[in-house]
Amino acid sequence: MEMKGIEAFEKVQRLIVVAAHPDDLETICGGTVALLVQRGVKVFSVNCTLGDIGAQDGKISRPALAVTRLAETEEAARMLGIEQTYNLGQPDGELVASLELRAQIARLYRHTGADTLWTFDPFWAGQVHPDHRAAGQAALDAYMPSKMPLYRPEQLNEPGICLGCLEQVFFFSTTRDPDVFVDISAVYPTKLAACIAHRSQFPEGEASLEWMKEMDQQRGQEIGAPCAETFKVIEVW
Amino acid sequence: MEMKGIEAFEKVQRLIVVAAHPDDLETICGGTVALLVQRGVKVFSVNCTLGDIGAQDGKISRPALAVTRLAETEEAARMLGIEQTYNLGQPDGELVASLELRAQIARLYRHTGADTLWTFDPFWAGQVHPDHRAAGQAALDAYMPSKMPLYRPEQLNEPGICLGCLEQVFFFSTTRDPDVFVDISAVYPTKLAACIAHRSQFPEGEASLEWMKEMDQQRGQEIGAPCAETFKVIEVW
Amino acid sequence: MEMKGIEAFEKVQRLIVVAAHPDDLETICGGTVALLVQRGVKVFSVNCTLGDIGAQDGKISRPALAVTRLAETEEAARMLGIEQTYNLGQPDGELVASLELRAQIARLYRHTGADTLWTFDPFWAGQVHPDHRAAGQAALDAYMPSKMPLYRPEQLNEPGICLGCLEQVFFFSTTRDPDVFVDISAVYPTKLAACIAHRSQFPEGEASLEWMKEMDQQRGQEIGAPCAETFKVIEVW
Amino acid sequence: MEMKGIEAFEKVQRLIVVAAHPDDLETICGGTVALLVQRGVKVFSVNCTLGDIGAQDGKISRPALAVTRLAETEEAARMLGIEQTYNLGQPDGELVASLELRAQIARLYRHTGADTLWTFDPFWAGQVHPDHRAAGQAALDAYMPSKMPLYRPEQLNEPGICLGCLEQVFFFSTTRDPDVFVDISAVYPTKLAACIAHRSQFPEGEASLEWMKEMDQQRGQEIGAPCAETFKVIEVW
Amino acid sequence: MEMKGIEAFEKVQRLIVVAAHPDDLETICGGTVALLVQRGVKVFSVNCTLGDIGAQDGKISRPALAVTRLAETEEAARMLGIEQTYNLGQPDGELVASLELRAQIARLYRHTGADTLWTFDPFWAGQVHPDHRAAGQAALDAYMPSKMPLYRPEQLNEPGICLGCLEQVFFFSTTRDPDVFVDISAVYPTKLAACIAHRSQFPEGEASLEWMKEMDQQRGQEIGAPCAETFKVIEVW
Amino acid sequence: MEMKGIEAFEKVQRLIVVAAHPDDLETICGGTVALLVQRGVKVFSVNCTLGDIGAQDGKISRPALAVTRLAETEEAARMLGIEQTYNLGQPDGELVASLELRAQIARLYRHTGADTLWTFDPFWAGQVHPDHRAAGQAALDAYMPSKMPLYRPEQLNEPGICLGCLEQVFFFSTTRDPDVFVDISAVYPTKLAACIAHRSQFPEGEASLEWMKEMDQQRGQEIGAPCAETFKVIEVW
Repeated sequence: MEMKGIEAFEKVQRLIVVAAHPDDLETICGGTVALLVQRGVKVFSVNCTLGDIGAQDGKISRPALAVTRLAETEEAARMLGIEQTYNLGQPDGELVASLELRAQIARLYRHTGADTLWTFDPFWAGQVHPDHRAAGQAALDAYMPSKMPLYRPEQLNEPGICLGCLEQVFFFSTTRDPDVFVDISAVYPTKLAACIAHRSQFPEGEASLEWMKEMDQQRGQEIGAPCAETFKVIEVW
Repeated sequence: MEMKGIEAFEKVQRLIVVAAHPDDLETICGGTVALLVQRGVKVFSVNCTLGDIGAQDGKISRPALAVTRLAETEEAARMLGIEQTYNLGQPDGELVASLELRAQIARLYRHTGADTLWTFDPFWAGQVHPDHRAAGQAALDAYMPSKMPLYRPEQLNEPGICLGCLEQVFFFSTTRDPDVFVDISAVYPTKLAACIAHRSQFPEGEASLEWMKEMDQQRGQEIGAPCAETFKVIEVW
Repeated sequence: MEMKGIEAFEKVQRLIVVAAHPDDLETICGGTVALLVQRGVKVFSVNCTLGDIGAQDGKISRPALAVTRLAETEEAARMLGIEQTYNLGQPDGELVASLELRAQIARLYRHTGADTLWTFDPFWAGQVHPDHRAAGQAALDAYMPSKMPLYRPEQLNEPGICLGCLEQVFFFSTTRDPDVFVDISAVYPTKLAACIAHRSQFPEGEASLEWMKEMDQQRGQEIGAPCAETFKVIEVW
Repeated sequence: MEMKGIEAFEKVQRLIVVAAHPDDLETICGGTVALLVQRGVKVFSVNCTLGDIGAQDGKISRPALAVTRLAETEEAARMLGIEQTYNLGQPDGELVASLELRAQIARLYRHTGADTLWTFDPFWAGQVHPDHRAAGQAALDAYMPSKMPLYRPEQLNEPGICLGCLEQVFFFSTTRDPDVFVDISAVYPTKLAACIAHRSQFPEGEASLEWMKEMDQQRGQEIGAPCAETFKVIEVW
Repeated sequence: MEMKGIEAFEKVQRLIVVAAHPDDLETICGGTVALLVQRGVKVFSVNCTLGDIGAQDGKISRPALAVTRLAETEEAARMLGIEQTYNLGQPDGELVASLELRAQIARLYRHTGADTLWTFDPFWAGQVHPDHRAAGQAALDAYMPSKMPLYRPEQLNEPGICLGCLEQVFFFSTTRDPDVFVDISAVYPTKLAACIAHRSQFPEGEASLEWMKEMDQQRGQEIGAPCAETFKVIEVW
Repeated sequence: MEMKGIEAFEKVQRLIVVAAHPDDLETICGGTVALLVQRGVKVFSVNCTLGDIGAQDGKISRPALAVTRLAETEEAARMLGIEQTYNLGQPDGELVASLELRAQIARLYRHTGADTLWTFDPFWAGQVHPDHRAAGQAALDAYMPSKMPLYRPEQLNEPGICLGCLEQVFFFSTTRDPDVFVDISAVYPTKLAACIAHRSQFPEGEASLEWMKEMDQQRGQEIGAPCAETFKVIEVW
């Protein structure tokens, strides 16, 4: 296994990131997203759920929390320069890699014309959050059928839509031998700001994000950088 | 990977064991359960199915077999000193890690106030029994939502129930680098007796359990003990 | 891990191969099938889907493509000497390892009296095609219940049917440490012809199969043979 | 609408009765069954569920109640002269007219070679028990596909099985214009005995069945008989 | 069929109303609810969905609409004197009478100790809205199991909960021979105010409710009153 | 109930017919379709299934039968002057009024801009074919959500698509008080030819259709015409 840096993404022009909840993208790969946006990459962000059970006390209603989190997502997306965000409205805490979710995601591969996918590693045995596994599984499973014209052919009637044309897949949130380490120190303030935009989750701002800073620093150490985000290349065909 | 003995469980006070069938707990980790009970740990045993296709000939009716196996489970539990047994009534041989099963298990995490979970390793590629994988998957997937107040909030209305408070997870029935080896020789007679209580499965008593004794001895050899049970620590957050 | 050659299959007398699509068997293990048939092994081929989204353009109707692919399957089976083919009619591109699929496959284990199963490795993290994973998962999950008389007992009423009697399981299409490498050079023309029979998929004949020849040659290099197919032994009980 | 008596059933030779719970057949049409058996009709009784939530207190386990009710069913069947009883094992209180239930029932139409079906009226708006509606719906919906060779063709491999050959359908448990009234006074003691065999449901014997006697008497009044059971002819094609 | 007035409800002490969307209760039976509350009846209101596709243009987000409608529901409930409102969070426009919905509703029968149920007539062939049929079907189907201790027994662990004790069922929104006509003219201003509280649905206030006033007047004519609401008694056992 | 003739359809400009199988439209309402096409109405034909179990012997493969029936459908459509046919590919003999089927049908309401729907009466208690009931139910249930912008909003991205704009609904295949009787004698040869185009179903041509001719003549008698087709107006809002 050869380790790479951000040059692993040099062919990326249109990137789709499939996550489970608002704030997944920002905390896991917000730095690398910011770097790619600077280089002119169009980034499309997909959250499978509204993140509407993400509360420490049970008094807020789920729709009220959803409204808040949709607004936080938009604010963070503006900071990172994301082209467009999508929310698939699936149930938080009960995301399932169903055929319906697969079709929703395949539709966005076809709609965005993305050439590259980032998503959760569905095979990482250390993944404790079932929604993360489900999001990654559905995103991976949508890769191949999205390229076939007889799969959900009604989707192909939309204007400007084309067959799926993903060429590269990378997993994040994995310790299964990550092989891309991106030094994100140059954009760390941007990453932090985008994360802090999710005030419902990080009520004390940067102080609520110490765990992330530690994780990013640990990963940085492996390449001698102040902080880093990591990915795993997946061979697709 | 550092190997540990029974001290791996020193912080355990309330343990929940999620298995698929009556006799799983007894044969796989009955010895360690007995040791922890001696130390004062409260142990809660959950079987997802009634084990009611567990017959060598097809003449017994499924409900009749279920009645037998529920009684055997109670008898074995008394021998091991288990606090309480639960049976979730899911279909034997067709257990699925559904959202419903996840909710049933999460409810028991909340009800028992368990701090520690033991269950099947759902990621072990050598696991041939689909029910084992399903039980482990659902038990792991219930871990995180059980701690969130907006997940199945109606459960939180029961008296004496609290949010899930699991802090430690261990997998059993795995060869994916187990890292806890517990010498169970001091309680082997108890383990054997609890297994033999499942007469419908082991009609010739100890003679039907030679395979288990061999397995326990093999594991013992790795730590220089007569017999051992093994576990794998899972990092949760 | 000890590597073996075709002697790994010396005890095989009745082999069932569970694949997802017409042409999977031929391209992945058609050579070894041909060798075993020469030795007198009865081979039963199961495709879970009709392969009816396998088209590069969307103008052909799915039933028309299905008719073509069923015919191609029969033609290839005659070339390889396969005893019988089965198609389970599940949806192509949307195969799910459901309880229904498991029961369909278990029925064929019981019907064919197969002693050996070959199928996709459902645990290989590099498996990009979701149908392949689903086929392998359902085939593996059918192994154990097919042997139990109270599992889907109505199946056992068919004439000539018996309890499942599989004794050996091998995975194909995996890079998770394959441990059987079969030199197929003696039957390569037969393998090629059987693949080419799938004209709808390989419209330019052998020229459409360069990728397969390369793969087979690469595998051959590991054992110093011109070309090889590989398998992974699975311990079952 | 022309009203008929037992001559409505003069062409019946093989009758299948699809009910939801043990004791449905006995209380609703046990008298007419007894009369037909006297005439030489072969009667096959199907209960979709085990009736295992049929208890007034929650202390008995469901499998224990199921065992009791299966035995009661056999005892009542012997009294009535029923040829064979079947229990489909679906969940009591949660019976759903699923495709799986339809297939289970269609299989029995094919297996028994029944010419006549009796079942619950699924369209009776006064039917408060959801299991009754589900049983009737599935039984009716199985009528047509059971006659088609490409519907669940694997069923047709069983020995002695044939395509469905139902020719007549009658609904019971309906006030939607019943048009068959059968005077059952000659066999009332037999009906009563068969009902009382369900001791778990009618713990005080005949005293627990006053409601049924009243209902049978009311129906009898409409034809000037001491007691009667009623049916509705359904036109099928 | 004998027609009745409000005396049809004289035995009601605790009433549960199961509807599909916020504003169903208010527009269909808000007047009769107000009259019963005046008489001291405790009224519990259940909406199965959030009503969050109830918008004429597609620019509002579903969670934002849900938040609005929950608030409107509370405001209307205060006006009518409703004891407690519940929202089951099922999908608007896609409500299905699933076993899960049945269990959610049965739990509320048990929780509220209601003696009387009002819900949509699931058998009215003129019911064009599928959510209305689904709500009525699930509510009716929950009636019987809610009274059985072995149905979803975990619900019975909640404090203050008891077995379902519904004794009377009435359908609304039906032209299948309604037999209860309640003169609501004395409380019409209250009904109107409660309806107008649903501003998202009736943006022009009373002017948006002309259809309802006409309907109420038409029904009034049948009993010689200015306006009326109608119900159908269902015989249950 | 006032009876009408073809003037009941005078406002129809764009008609969508939702049936279950190829040949349903032709045999049930092919005459009236022909009359409306003559008047300039655009007719869109939807079959939910491929009709691929419609065979008297089990030797033909389902895909082969599907290919035949799709071709027969096109041939019949040309004879009747139908604008466009759609086949939804759902399973024959196992059609279910699922949310997915509802969405497929709603999409076609939106796509065709139909103002009028004809479909099976899902509430007719004499409907023995479960697929017919399912088709009618799903078609009716799609009526209302198809008009709401937040229902399946991704459909509204297709070019030329608009919100559902159905204004009239009629049921066919019902004896529940049909109130439209259309004299079809002027176009009976066309109807017959379109039916005969389904050679796989009516192998002896007109001789296989005596049942239909009788039925059409019976209906004609009620209005003093040689033959007629009948419909039932449904009030929608």
